[in-house]
Amino acid sequence: MTATIPSLARRLDSVQSSAIRDLLALTAREDVISLAGGLPAAELIPAQRVREAAAAVLSESSAVQYGETPGWRGLREVIAARESASLRRTVDPAEVVVTHGSQQALTLVAQALVDPGAVVVVDEPAYTGALQVFSIAGAEIHALPIADDGMNTGELEQRLRDGLRPALVHTVSNFHNPRGVTLSDVKRRHLAELAARYGFWILEDDPYGEIWFDAPPPKPIAAHSDRVIRLSSASKILAPALRVGWMVAPKRVCDAVELLKQGADLCGSSMTQQMTANLLSDDAWLEVHVDGLRAEYGLRADALRGALDARFGDRISVSPADGGMFVWLTFHDGTDTTAMLPKALDNGVAFVPGRAFADTAEHAGAARLCFASSPPAMLETAVSRLYSAHTLS
Amino acid sequence: MTATIPSLARRLDSVQSSAIRDLLALTAREDVISLAGGLPAAELIPAQRVREAAAAVLSESSAVQYGETPGWRGLREVIAARESASLRRTVDPAEVVVTHGSQQALTLVAQALVDPGAVVVVDEPAYTGALQVFSIAGAEIHALPIADDGMNTGELEQRLRDGLRPALVHTVSNFHNPRGVTLSDVKRRHLAELAARYGFWILEDDPYGEIWFDAPPPKPIAAHSDRVIRLSSASKILAPALRVGWMVAPKRVCDAVELLKQGADLCGSSMTQQMTANLLSDDAWLEVHVDGLRAEYGLRADALRGALDARFGDRISVSPADGGMFVWLTFHDGTDTTAMLPKALDNGVAFVPGRAFADTAEHAGAARLCFASSPPAMLETAVSRLYSAHTLS
Repeated sequence: MTATIPSLARRLDSVQSSAIRDLLALTAREDVISLAGGLPAAELIPAQRVREAAAAVLSESSAVQYGETPGWRGLREVIAARESASLRRTVDPAEVVVTHGSQQALTLVAQALVDPGAVVVVDEPAYTGALQVFSIAGAEIHALPIADDGMNTGELEQRLRDGLRPALVHTVSNFHNPRGVTLSDVKRRHLAELAARYGFWILEDDPYGEIWFDAPPPKPIAAHSDRVIRLSSASKILAPALRVGWMVAPKRVCDAVELLKQGADLCGSSMTQQMTANLLSDDAWLEVHVDGLRAEYGLRADALRGALDARFGDRISVSPADGGMFVWLTFHDGTDTTAMLPKALDNGVAFVPGRAFADTAEHAGAARLCFASSPPAMLETAVSRLYSAHTLS
Repeated sequence: MTATIPSLARRLDSVQSSAIRDLLALTAREDVISLAGGLPAAELIPAQRVREAAAAVLSESSAVQYGETPGWRGLREVIAARESASLRRTVDPAEVVVTHGSQQALTLVAQALVDPGAVVVVDEPAYTGALQVFSIAGAEIHALPIADDGMNTGELEQRLRDGLRPALVHTVSNFHNPRGVTLSDVKRRHLAELAARYGFWILEDDPYGEIWFDAPPPKPIAAHSDRVIRLSSASKILAPALRVGWMVAPKRVCDAVELLKQGADLCGSSMTQQMTANLLSDDAWLEVHVDGLRAEYGLRADALRGALDARFGDRISVSPADGGMFVWLTFHDGTDTTAMLPKALDNGVAFVPGRAFADTAEHAGAARLCFASSPPAMLETAVSRLYSAHTLS
């Protein structure tokens, strides 16, 4: 008798095959410039300071032992203090759960709050990692076409009036992945008001908020509502290998997530959590470091947008880049980016086709390009390769 | 309108409250000697060698960047080589998935293989972390009273003949948590044969197999069957804070778990995975280190068993301790260990009552004691405190 994998076929059939994942394999090819991944620039990860943090915390035996499920107390205190400053109200460390990257928080929140068949509202296009989690949870996903000022809260209100009752509304509030846009302050307040009126949770997914170029984004949605579960991460500003993300949410949500985390992995790494606290609490260093990231990523965004504009002119439009790691490219000449991708790879450049983020014909001509991983000259080469691939299409 | 936590009440109602978890809070009290946790001895964690590993891997930028979902290739190769030696057949790195502690493997395997309502067979008593995971998965849990030579495969065969059709059979094959026993070679082969005949998966949970005192345990169940998903971990022999566990299983199970891991946390830590590879591949050092653990944990096991015997005599029986971290204490005088626990804490000693591992009256007089975390003299003090608490009961 053959041992079977019973749940899998059923549960994963509905999970979109991840174009990002398949493409990450290609980024390993030396000859391909990858604009596909969402990796911070290796040369901008503060490796030396991370080494110092490792040496500092590893002098204590608490850094090698099991830790508490909701995260090392010292790190939760640092995060609570930073969030208090950002939200302009006191956040208690008990309202913080440290997770294994913010992706784990996304999964545990979905486990806690999303029953099979429950409605989850997302942006269109949306972060594929969120789509995957909500699909695995068996959610009924409603996608709202996103605007240049973020989630379409007007359309959301209309659907709520028509009877839609979401358990959860997910958005990447700052420098949206993949759309690049930022939710306006007015819409943040509107979304908060809708959550209060219709009783849903807002999942404010905010890994990029610190990487602004000219001006900080508006106050977090969580500053306007107590129905917000706010996610962020050390991956984009410090180092992905810390695998430290966090959730800031009302205590009862934290309690639920903590219980699920206990089953999921018992606890996080005392070592990387103590290292993260060491790094995040070194205010003087952190300010200089993050300012440096902002400046360099800003240059890269300009380089990519400039090169695209110079090469393609009015055949395309490119989203503004006020921060984060991505721009959203849209072809107006009927180009199908999924069909173009193999030619682009042949020409030594990778991107993620729009269809990976929303399986609608509307985004067939779009693509997400990451400007963060490559220096300006390489971005220019990438665009000229993209241009060759486009010409051949 | 109040935003609700819909799934949670339903899903977690069936999850046993974890006595271990509640007790871990107490182990932080300076005046309590904890025999409750499952922590390796802090002073036996090779902190200096871990520091060296951190320094070594952090000289490469790949150690701070995102990694591959199934784990760093170099670590999977080291694990595959070690497993090949243990199973006496070639294990391919593609049959290895590195997880965030072996607890994450347990969760992802349950997600992949256990539908709500599916039958899962466990030992009675069983590892609480496994009970929790299977409860969250909505499994119908069948517990088989364990014998001195491990899982009761005779009873399992009878139930299979009577029509029981498990998706999964879970056991801690070596130095069982909490029962201390080891599955005999004959029973390993029997279990393998039953899996082939009735088409179920065996989840061979083996975090303690390397910590044997006088002689190594029999070959893994996976040496006898291709229906085995084998879990182990760096937590007990290296350092829990690495949060590195692994699963060795047929490729199709690895593929399923990899896809679920992508949703769960994208990937593990390149840093701690590279550190683990550095440590596990340093054969000469590792052999000396693990021999040292075996010797010291063996002394501690003897000290605890000797002290219990000297104090309580024939009012108790204590499981043998051939390895691992735990002994199973059974009172024959009607003592209810759950009732006794508060008095024990008042007397400055903690343990886990038998009922945490199987909610049956039969284990009301039992307790799990961890000998690993405390040196011999402290174990003797712990037993005299336990004796005082017992006298007061």
